[in-house]
Amino acid sequence: MTGVKHQKWWGWGVEGIGFNPEGKPNFAPFVKKQIDLDISAPGTPPKFEDLDVPSVVIDESLRTALLDIVGERYLLDDDLDRIMHTFGKGVRDLMRIRRGDLRRVVDVVVYPADEAQVQRIVDTCVEADAVLIPFGGGSNIVGALEPLPDERRTVVSIDMGRMTKVLEIDDESGLARIQAGALGPQIEEQLGRRGWTMGHFPDSFNHSTLGGWIATRSTGMQSDKYGDIADIVHGLRAVRHGEVLVLRPLPSTSSGPSVREMMIGSEGRLGIITEAWVDVHRVPEVREIVGYFFPDFTSGIDAMQEINVSDAHTTVTRVSDANETQFSFSTQRAAKGRKKLEMKVLFGVLKRRGWDLDKMCLSYIGFEGGRRYVKANQDIVRTIVAKHGGIVVGTGVGSVYDSKKFDTPYIRDFLLDRGATADVSETTTPWSNLRHLYATTIEAAQQAFEKCDTKGFIMCHFAHSYHSGACLYFTYAVPDNDRTTSYSTYDTVKRAVQQNFVDNGGTVSHHHGVGTEHAPWIAEDISPAGEKIQRALFEGTDPGRHFNPGKIIHDGKPGVAMYSADAPAPGGVSGLEERESVTN
Amino acid sequence: MTGVKHQKWWGWGVEGIGFNPEGKPNFAPFVKKQIDLDISAPGTPPKFEDLDVPSVVIDESLRTALLDIVGERYLLDDDLDRIMHTFGKGVRDLMRIRRGDLRRVVDVVVYPADEAQVQRIVDTCVEADAVLIPFGGGSNIVGALEPLPDERRTVVSIDMGRMTKVLEIDDESGLARIQAGALGPQIEEQLGRRGWTMGHFPDSFNHSTLGGWIATRSTGMQSDKYGDIADIVHGLRAVRHGEVLVLRPLPSTSSGPSVREMMIGSEGRLGIITEAWVDVHRVPEVREIVGYFFPDFTSGIDAMQEINVSDAHTTVTRVSDANETQFSFSTQRAAKGRKKLEMKVLFGVLKRRGWDLDKMCLSYIGFEGGRRYVKANQDIVRTIVAKHGGIVVGTGVGSVYDSKKFDTPYIRDFLLDRGATADVSETTTPWSNLRHLYATTIEAAQQAFEKCDTKGFIMCHFAHSYHSGACLYFTYAVPDNDRTTSYSTYDTVKRAVQQNFVDNGGTVSHHHGVGTEHAPWIAEDISPAGEKIQRALFEGTDPGRHFNPGKIIHDGKPGVAMYSADAPAPGGVSGLEERESVTN
Repeated sequence: MTGVKHQKWWGWGVEGIGFNPEGKPNFAPFVKKQIDLDISAPGTPPKFEDLDVPSVVIDESLRTALLDIVGERYLLDDDLDRIMHTFGKGVRDLMRIRRGDLRRVVDVVVYPADEAQVQRIVDTCVEADAVLIPFGGGSNIVGALEPLPDERRTVVSIDMGRMTKVLEIDDESGLARIQAGALGPQIEEQLGRRGWTMGHFPDSFNHSTLGGWIATRSTGMQSDKYGDIADIVHGLRAVRHGEVLVLRPLPSTSSGPSVREMMIGSEGRLGIITEAWVDVHRVPEVREIVGYFFPDFTSGIDAMQEINVSDAHTTVTRVSDANETQFSFSTQRAAKGRKKLEMKVLFGVLKRRGWDLDKMCLSYIGFEGGRRYVKANQDIVRTIVAKHGGIVVGTGVGSVYDSKKFDTPYIRDFLLDRGATADVSETTTPWSNLRHLYATTIEAAQQAFEKCDTKGFIMCHFAHSYHSGACLYFTYAVPDNDRTTSYSTYDTVKRAVQQNFVDNGGTVSHHHGVGTEHAPWIAEDISPAGEKIQRALFEGTDPGRHFNPGKIIHDGKPGVAMYSADAPAPGGVSGLEERESVTN
Repeated sequence: MTGVKHQKWWGWGVEGIGFNPEGKPNFAPFVKKQIDLDISAPGTPPKFEDLDVPSVVIDESLRTALLDIVGERYLLDDDLDRIMHTFGKGVRDLMRIRRGDLRRVVDVVVYPADEAQVQRIVDTCVEADAVLIPFGGGSNIVGALEPLPDERRTVVSIDMGRMTKVLEIDDESGLARIQAGALGPQIEEQLGRRGWTMGHFPDSFNHSTLGGWIATRSTGMQSDKYGDIADIVHGLRAVRHGEVLVLRPLPSTSSGPSVREMMIGSEGRLGIITEAWVDVHRVPEVREIVGYFFPDFTSGIDAMQEINVSDAHTTVTRVSDANETQFSFSTQRAAKGRKKLEMKVLFGVLKRRGWDLDKMCLSYIGFEGGRRYVKANQDIVRTIVAKHGGIVVGTGVGSVYDSKKFDTPYIRDFLLDRGATADVSETTTPWSNLRHLYATTIEAAQQAFEKCDTKGFIMCHFAHSYHSGACLYFTYAVPDNDRTTSYSTYDTVKRAVQQNFVDNGGTVSHHHGVGTEHAPWIAEDISPAGEKIQRALFEGTDPGRHFNPGKIIHDGKPGVAMYSADAPAPGGVSGLEERESVTN
């Protein structure tokens, strides 16, 4: 055993942890009402022995060379490890696993102990004309880990799970040098012992790594204060063929187009990130998440916008739309005693004020800093919330959010076990376009549900305020997952949502990255000229296509994800000629 | 006449404005003491008729095609315009102009009216195998505008000076769409009329453009609040061969390696930027620059660092070292009446407190926002300043800074007229390394002065606080400018300073860019692998080398600026073969 823990091969999180609807009396009726699904039947998680895993493609000489680098314990090529390293946790990954639609599986997984071993692995693989795909926590949901379906060369997955250390803290500068394979909790635990926090808490926090955050341009929940990962990372090291890219921890620089920024979001295509220097902050005296209610989504967004241009400073700004608010209520344990009474009284007051409780929206705002500073910020926010018709619910609701914030993916697996499909899509757009983009996306999803003749559900929250705009995060579900037919219902809905983003002023992804799932929209997102620039960068730095080829830049049919129902069957992927042609 | 105004062909700013030492009784003695230069002799600005300008290299067919696009009024190929568009305002540019060391001069200057004309110019020039160099305000000091010395093809300068409009303001999002050729004052005037500010005030503000700021990764004085240009720009358009790169104004995105960031700092190598979407902010209720004194530079830096991690928010954090403080006093008008008395009293108090007035350091801190917010921030700052032994001097000194902040380059021209050479070099480094980098840079400059047997002077200020570090901005002067010999004194000093930056944890440039002056250090700054990545990007996107070739990526002898004394003579530049070889 390598000692490196992984998520379930078939779903989110580690074995033994999942969503349990017991004690949540509103959940089953909610699901029944929204997507007409009866959740009382027991779930049916997949069985590994049902999978027909293709055999390993590797020359004995390459295998021996890799063994020589990492040793027998740290080279795995059994079917379970190969499957675990081929798929992320996108709903398409999980659907495919459940129906045995595997296509090209990685051939061998190696676990380097340090950067020197990464260098030897990279050089060996490039010289043997093999393909390298880095693996962090395996949590990505955009198909960033899977080899190209028609890849004929050996595919090596580099699992960074042994490189998990905080190597150095520059206490004076608020910088820490951390190995790329460190998972969120490993980072915060090591930093916390010395009184520091990185402040980066994406939804995937428990199962994603620093290297993965950098490679996908991740954003954490507290980005209003701590910034996106691109703001947090100030230096890094990455192994390329025969060399290490070394970017020192500089606060800012004007040394040409930023190579640091090129590495952020590179998804393995520019090399294997081994460590990074990141901003760290002293754990603040006060840290509070306060809950608020707004009469509707628009008033909530209006308030967030006014907070953004006020003198207040927040760490989290989040508003759920009415559907997500109802969903949130449905997943709560039944309120009892005093809490139940308080909620009853509150809802009575709101009704008398004329609120339509079906339109009500739950909001969370985070504050950090010294006590006086936090109070001053909360005072400004309270006034703005009231101006927009909202009310303060308090830190009780806030701490519920704080303790449950990482749990939603388990509900997706629970639904998948029972035949329903749920996914998420997130985007950003300027403030002036947020309401329009929200309305058109809901409309696009509803039309897709109708087209597929299915009872679908879509909900949304606003999060991550920036000076000029914010993120809209949509979650949607349909009652069937095409278990025996194709992926067409899922594809239709997912495609409608993503297409609506780029058609209506949004980006194809705020923080999930591109992989193969979003690649079809890159030319529409950053314009064909932008796609050409990215392509020139990848082809110029990796002419042999050894580093996670086919990710980010679309290599197939425009508008069709590489592994969707409409994509060519394995062995017949188009676009290779185009990919290998000279750019410009 | 095109109607586009330019700076003097031989120096900073427009004709008729310059530094005047009259009424500043301390200036002449200060200069005499520090660099042993007598400034009483009248200056000798250069005469244009002394220049031997090489003749224009252009095919009649290309000239006709360009004329057809912009019309006769907007195509210039007289010697004065060609010289003005060949040089920036680096001290090497100005020295070379003064001694007639011209080398390769641009052949023709065109002034497009709009993006459509830029597209036609670009396509025409690429198809005629000509070279394109964009021109904004001509204020850059890193040799970013000059053609390669051995360039045999026609060189076309695209002057963006007719594209100066704020095209659109998204009032709801705080975004403005602005043409790339707009100078700082043109932008702020148009925004100000509608109650907005961009908040970007580099030292070159009066003579630099939005396109230039983006192309060089500029930083403004108020970056603590408004960010670097990379933080401010959210979308842009750039003309490439046969296409326009269109990046929409997105608050944040994870669509692969950021093409937006690749354009920032691209210095014309990736295309001609025509417009950008930038963050704009409402003009704040209160805007104050407060002056402080610290007993020495270290205590000043310590205070800035503590302010940075406190709950206070500032717009400017700046401390001059003792030499720069003395320089600053020397350029002030003689104090009279009450002001003179106040200063006398203040200095008396400080002396009695045990301060050594020769070590005293002047500091400025900026505050913006609502009155209550500004006061809360000033209160926190005052406490921290006092803790580090500093005292508040007040907003009077601050407003002097504010009104004179753009004037320093005029003093450089004044000295140049009188035989002395002054230049600036700026860097950033983490907080923990600031004091070391400061000390080693001063030492490196002193050693260079000794090596050249010259009485040189170096001063520095701290500015631009970031979470993990800050900028050190050095200004240095030597009493001779090698008028009749070589550039060796200047080169020796400049090289010592820049080499010390990269040898001691600093970047080669914080906000001046790379051009040809800093190109020799790029591999040391971002590592050889980083330089290869930049090179692959430029070669892959511009295989014909039409877009400002030779900038950023070093094409000559390591450690030698392209136009320095040690560089090969015109026609004999090495490295072309290397440049044209395949990367990786």
